Amino acid sequence: MQNYKLVLQYDGTRYRGWQKQGNTKDTIQGKVESVLEKMTGEAIEVHGSGRTDAGVHANAQVANVKLPDDGRGEQEILTYLNQYLPEDIVVMSVEKVDARFHARLCAKEKTYVYRICTTQQPNVFTRKYTLHIPEKLDLLKMKDAASFLEGEHDFTSFCGNRHLKKSAVRTIYSISFTQRDGELQIRVTGNGFLQNMVRIIVGTLVEVGMGKRMQQEMESVLKAKNRDKAGVTIAAKGLSLEEVRY
Amino acid sequence: MQNYKLVLQYDGTRYRGWQKQGNTKDTIQGKVESVLEKMTGEAIEVHGSGRTDAGVHANAQVANVKLPDDGRGEQEILTYLNQYLPEDIVVMSVEKVDARFHARLCAKEKTYVYRICTTQQPNVFTRKYTLHIPEKLDLLKMKDAASFLEGEHDFTSFCGNRHLKKSAVRTIYSISFTQRDGELQIRVTGNGFLQNMVRIIVGTLVEVGMGKRMQQEMESVLKAKNRDKAGVTIAAKGLSLEEVRY
Repeated sequence: MQNYKLVLQYDGTRYRGWQKQGNTKDTIQGKVESVLEKMTGEAIEVHGSGRTDAGVHANAQVANVKLPDDGRGEQEILTYLNQYLPEDIVVMSVEKVDARFHARLCAKEKTYVYRICTTQQPNVFTRKYTLHIPEKLDLLKMKDAASFLEGEHDFTSFCGNRHLKKSAVRTIYSISFTQRDGELQIRVTGNGFLQNMVRIIVGTLVEVGMGKRMQQEMESVLKAKNRDKAGVTIAAKGLSLEEVRY
Repeated sequence: MQNYKLVLQYDGTRYRGWQKQGNTKDTIQGKVESVLEKMTGEAIEVHGSGRTDAGVHANAQVANVKLPDDGRGEQEILTYLNQYLPEDIVVMSVEKVDARFHARLCAKEKTYVYRICTTQQPNVFTRKYTLHIPEKLDLLKMKDAASFLEGEHDFTSFCGNRHLKKSAVRTIYSISFTQRDGELQIRVTGNGFLQNMVRIIVGTLVEVGMGKRMQQEMESVLKAKNRDKAGVTIAAKGLSLEEVRY
């Protein structure tokens, strides 16, 4: 078997997220596996760097997959995948990697980008990839609130699913804001993320930007380790997994 | 009656173009008229600055429409339109204008943008708004070819429908090229355009860029006044009506 690293781009609009659920095929993982099973004639398991929720996009999701050594080159696998995948999933690259490479376990750093369309009317060309918020957002307050979240913290308050007993301690390296062409982009980089974590962080920051909560609250929200203290889980469609670093 | 200027943005993917055809409702004009007819209870005719072909988009199409004076303000009309229009058509602004303003007859200058995705694999987020051409294009030759088209010419060779006896003389003020983020944008500004003209121009320029024809040919193509001498009518989906000036 040969291990391959795949970099994938997808429009998550019509999928139930990255991760396969039972035998449903409407997940990105399910789509990719089914093409590779067709290609190899074998059962295949693709490992993503992490799940993305239903409706979340990826600019560069990373996955690895072990395939039988049947003489196919990387370019040939790439071409085969893009020929049979639907047009809203594109494999950007296929690369042979060491057998020890695992997309999830080896990931060191991830960046997510949340896009907000801030113009009075929504932009039709980005409507599926941005959340439209025409109300004025106070960017200074949002930046201030974001600074409380940078660093190593227990993010229990920002986790959508705390039934699991695992640690909720993560490190956020940076949260940065860019405004351009009627769009506000919030870029969050960290060593790993809990379920819905970026969406809850952005949802809370937007509430700060709208004046619904004070930026200083962030400290007590973190300390509370209680999901109810943070803001809403903001819409999935504005979120994209931008980059995974190893 | 009060005359209004509308600025519209639309994703043309699922429409048969701007212009109403018989009683079909799957045109942009048809959609806008049907919402205004619902609003006013009267038969309404909306005049666009020009037709856009099936599948062509608009960043800022301009139209005018005369509506009964029933006390509705501009903001109210704007809100009503966006409430009932599908999400791939957005009215950006509604403005009262002089009764003599006519979106088509008063237009002085139009700009179209053609977007080509030039990366090895197509970009999933722009797949409906760009044409994917991974082959290398010689930009210098394309610019050289484009320069022959600037100025006042008879564009019969670049017209998709020469059954009409009207003049095919138009002025192209500029054709410019921008490369950014894996995308080549070709921006064409002129005083008016014949049917399919921008798509045939871009189709011909792409053939030059691929080395299928020489840039110097453009002069003889123009002189021939024969549609068969120019290149293909390139795919509609890469084209967008960017701006109309009055």
